[in-house]
Amino acid sequence: MTPKAVKALEDSDIIVGYNTYIALVRDLIGDKEVVGNGMRQEVDRCQKAVDLAVEGHKVAVISSGDPGVYGMAGLVLELVEKVDREKRPSCEIIPGLTAANTAAAALGAPLMHDYAVISLSDLMTPWDLIKRRARLAAEGDFVIAIYNPKSRGRATYLDQIRDIVLEYRKPETPVGIVRKAGRPGMSTTVTTLEKLPEADVDMQSTVIIGNSNTYVADGIMITPRGYKV
Amino acid sequence: MTPKAVKALEDSDIIVGYNTYIALVRDLIGDKEVVGNGMRQEVDRCQKAVDLAVEGHKVAVISSGDPGVYGMAGLVLELVEKVDREKRPSCEIIPGLTAANTAAAALGAPLMHDYAVISLSDLMTPWDLIKRRARLAAEGDFVIAIYNPKSRGRATYLDQIRDIVLEYRKPETPVGIVRKAGRPGMSTTVTTLEKLPEADVDMQSTVIIGNSNTYVADGIMITPRGYKV
Repeated sequence: MTPKAVKALEDSDIIVGYNTYIALVRDLIGDKEVVGNGMRQEVDRCQKAVDLAVEGHKVAVISSGDPGVYGMAGLVLELVEKVDREKRPSCEIIPGLTAANTAAAALGAPLMHDYAVISLSDLMTPWDLIKRRARLAAEGDFVIAIYNPKSRGRATYLDQIRDIVLEYRKPETPVGIVRKAGRPGMSTTVTTLEKLPEADVDMQSTVIIGNSNTYVADGIMITPRGYKV
Repeated sequence: MTPKAVKALEDSDIIVGYNTYIALVRDLIGDKEVVGNGMRQEVDRCQKAVDLAVEGHKVAVISSGDPGVYGMAGLVLELVEKVDREKRPSCEIIPGLTAANTAAAALGAPLMHDYAVISLSDLMTPWDLIKRRARLAAEGDFVIAIYNPKSRGRATYLDQIRDIVLEYRKPETPVGIVRKAGRPGMSTTVTTLEKLPEADVDMQSTVIIGNSNTYVADGIMITPRGYKV
């Protein structure tokens, strides 16, 4: 977290967020009022935050990573825009470190060249569009950072994406997997596209597939920017 | 900056970086030894940092934004890997907020869906590959974050990319421009693909082109994630 995010929590009267994330900032919020709830209740949660802000409270809505990347920033702004103009609360988005960047640093420097960020969650995005994006990113030799690579309902999705990328990249292309990027208990694995199906990947993992120049040295994943060294 | 980055600066004996970036952290580094130099001297600068680390100094190499995104992380690791194993210094990459995420927060929430990050600098990447990537990202309806959109030698590059994206997206597609993202004097502009050539874009700007669902409300750029609101 940046000092700006910490200060925003301190300055708020009410903290709103998914229970798991509330637990991560427990030490920072003391005995402030907390509105937490479970997964897939995002709209209720953010509407509640907006309602409280309209009532005059200073409200902080928390996301993990960067709220602006698959987080709550967009939803909060959409709901704020629905409030009558004269009652509409002001809203500031405070950026954070998204998992792609935190995971990259833990793996070495895989994002040194053009990259694409793709979520495999098909709750709100058609699976065909996700596959199409993965194919185009593979074709363009983008480094690819994958969010939400697996869950119980989507056990084969990552393998399907891997098969698509293999049409464009060598089997030995490095792949990094980071569990719990930036959180306590973070762990990293470096493998290859070929061996990816054997790797341990779960819902809390971020997967980074190298481009055609990415290599591994001493277990560290490096995508050269192109400097002559 | 994260507290971890601040602490790394405090714990280092020597700070190495591009002069412009050294100036940005002047207050944090007190009277520590500084090795600064100019643009396009990246290899010399990072080699110097690695040499100093081999001699036993604690060295911090600074980049702006995230060192792992078009920054110095990869180059430093490449040079560290060239040192004989028995003398090789340990090296930690500390992630930061890259311009895409900082700029996104300043504009609203344009990166809420799958996105591609592309640099238009052709110093080390063939211009044809950059254009190809922009085309594929446009075809895949990725939000597109553009780094290094313009410089004296590349005055028309952004307009060429805009023309490519216009083959796939409507002229009214929102485009956000952030100058000096996250730095003193930051400014934002929201325009459209059609009007982008009239906008003031320079080397210090980050440009974010929305996807087919991105809209502007009250001057704020929002890419819906897909929640029913």
